[in-house]
Amino acid sequence: MKVSSLGELNLIEKIKKEIESRKHRNYNKKDLILGIGDDSAIVAKDFNRDLLATTDMLIEGVHFSKKTASPKQIGWKALACNLSDIAAMGGIPRYALVSLGFPGDTAVREIEDLYKGIESLAGKYRVKIIGGDTVSSPSFFVISITLLGEIIKKEFVSRAGASLGDKILVTGTLGNAGGGLKLLKENEFALPHNRSEKYLLRKFLLPEPRIKEGRIIARGKYATSMIDCSDGLDSSIRFISLESKVGAKIYIDSIPMSRELIKVSMFLKKTPLDFALFGGEDYELVFTASPEKINKIKKHISEVTVIGEIVNKKEGIKFLDKKGKELKFRAKGYEHFTHNTDF
Amino acid sequence: MKVSSLGELNLIEKIKKEIESRKHRNYNKKDLILGIGDDSAIVAKDFNRDLLATTDMLIEGVHFSKKTASPKQIGWKALACNLSDIAAMGGIPRYALVSLGFPGDTAVREIEDLYKGIESLAGKYRVKIIGGDTVSSPSFFVISITLLGEIIKKEFVSRAGASLGDKILVTGTLGNAGGGLKLLKENEFALPHNRSEKYLLRKFLLPEPRIKEGRIIARGKYATSMIDCSDGLDSSIRFISLESKVGAKIYIDSIPMSRELIKVSMFLKKTPLDFALFGGEDYELVFTASPEKINKIKKHISEVTVIGEIVNKKEGIKFLDKKGKELKFRAKGYEHFTHNTDF
Repeated sequence: MKVSSLGELNLIEKIKKEIESRKHRNYNKKDLILGIGDDSAIVAKDFNRDLLATTDMLIEGVHFSKKTASPKQIGWKALACNLSDIAAMGGIPRYALVSLGFPGDTAVREIEDLYKGIESLAGKYRVKIIGGDTVSSPSFFVISITLLGEIIKKEFVSRAGASLGDKILVTGTLGNAGGGLKLLKENEFALPHNRSEKYLLRKFLLPEPRIKEGRIIARGKYATSMIDCSDGLDSSIRFISLESKVGAKIYIDSIPMSRELIKVSMFLKKTPLDFALFGGEDYELVFTASPEKINKIKKHISEVTVIGEIVNKKEGIKFLDKKGKELKFRAKGYEHFTHNTDF
Repeated sequence: MKVSSLGELNLIEKIKKEIESRKHRNYNKKDLILGIGDDSAIVAKDFNRDLLATTDMLIEGVHFSKKTASPKQIGWKALACNLSDIAAMGGIPRYALVSLGFPGDTAVREIEDLYKGIESLAGKYRVKIIGGDTVSSPSFFVISITLLGEIIKKEFVSRAGASLGDKILVTGTLGNAGGGLKLLKENEFALPHNRSEKYLLRKFLLPEPRIKEGRIIARGKYATSMIDCSDGLDSSIRFISLESKVGAKIYIDSIPMSRELIKVSMFLKKTPLDFALFGGEDYELVFTASPEKINKIKKHISEVTVIGEIVNKKEGIKFLDKKGKELKFRAKGYEHFTHNTDF
């Protein structure tokens, strides 16, 4: 069977089983707090902190195109997606290892600019690059970043804690990055210039990970589960439901969307909801919290919206309109291998 | 300027400067023990241990070929080169993050076998895979592994501690992997079968990292500096000299080489010394120690050989024959970008 017919999630499931099946002779299991399958792995660090580790690989022609993103933007984004994984655990990012593969005829300036992009975001969150690898590639660019972080013991928020009656919340507005990507695809050689278009492009090319909000949520013990929105809201909800063994109702009219996305969507002849649910790469946080915590959360995080609630597993996942009517979509959250490209 | 004319070492120097130049506002420098430029980075973990982190990226067509290596062998080797970096610090490997990029039409079986290769070596050293990423690649395979390890505080051995009068030692025999690689290149479609050839192929395809020996050296505080031999002995000596600010004399007749390499070299019409000095991928340890420690080292490590000594920086690096005559080579240790391929 080809990977393209199996799909990424099934492949990861297979790999996970393979790894779990091995007998660890004398392996100290107490040290491993969370393994494969969440935004970051967690291992014990010292008496009051644990270590977070997450990694992302970005490949030219799949995750980015040098036609539509500058080296600085590519570097920024490569670190941003890792930072978002640390944010989704409620952690503090600390150290990065950066591996780059590129052809020998690449201009040195391009590599320096790529590092400048990584460095400018790293500096913002006091992340230090402590190692990496630079290798030759036959044609396209490859960037692989591993980010290490810390979390105060027992403060971490996994995907598996949502329970019946919890509200579902999101930070910021959704769909902007998906709208920006669509704009780039439609206007590859003539970059758009109006204010709304620039806003979406910025959201796609230079996303801001929600480190601060993730910390507030973890410190306040506000959330029962959390994930980032890097594969679209639809995927985020499916992951939380799967890992928490619950169902979910999403009120689609509550999903926060920017005026900029709504304007540009009209121009693109698309519904903004499509970008919010399936666009991906938004790096907002999706989390669940018991109803009595909502006021406190809103006091501490300005941009946060309740979009639904957790229901019994057997009710499944439902997207409802104002009248309570269920909307049906084909599942199409981003999956590698079954889709072709996401830049 | 193109990267190919700058070379990997100069590029890393540029990147390092870029990173060091940034002002770390409130950055806790005490936590970072060793940054870019050694086999692994080191950060503080708890009161008696530090954390090691190292990463390697392998790209199809540059570091391996699916024509000459099975998925299991590729997986094994990808982890082995990371384990060797932990060994060269004297550390204990613990956790791995594995990122894979491959085309959607790859057989699922191939990916499973690649993980089996990683897992079989991981199991041997009780390394647990705790995370990773699987992404689609337009054509070739990419494997990026980050390995986390531990080291008892102050036990680590860097590249920068060799001092005047220290002996230079190596574990095992050198040049086997280079000989194996040469065999593969000459016999791509007709794999060689005699015992010596099989030995070299195994050394190239399924290298054994020197974790045990690295631990003995670190625990006994035997070494003043240490590095692995992944880029060839010539490179290892140059790195130790550079970082320790010393010179080195190598007695070429003392360099340990296997009978298998000598036999196969005759058949290949090559001098085995070329493989030992410039072949690379041997994953043996090269280290320096004060003369009075040599007997203890030989008692605890069976396969270890003194090959030279540390001299004053101004004497440079010299390779001497039995008569004390200096041999001149063109510098040709493996460098990415200036060479084309190393599989």
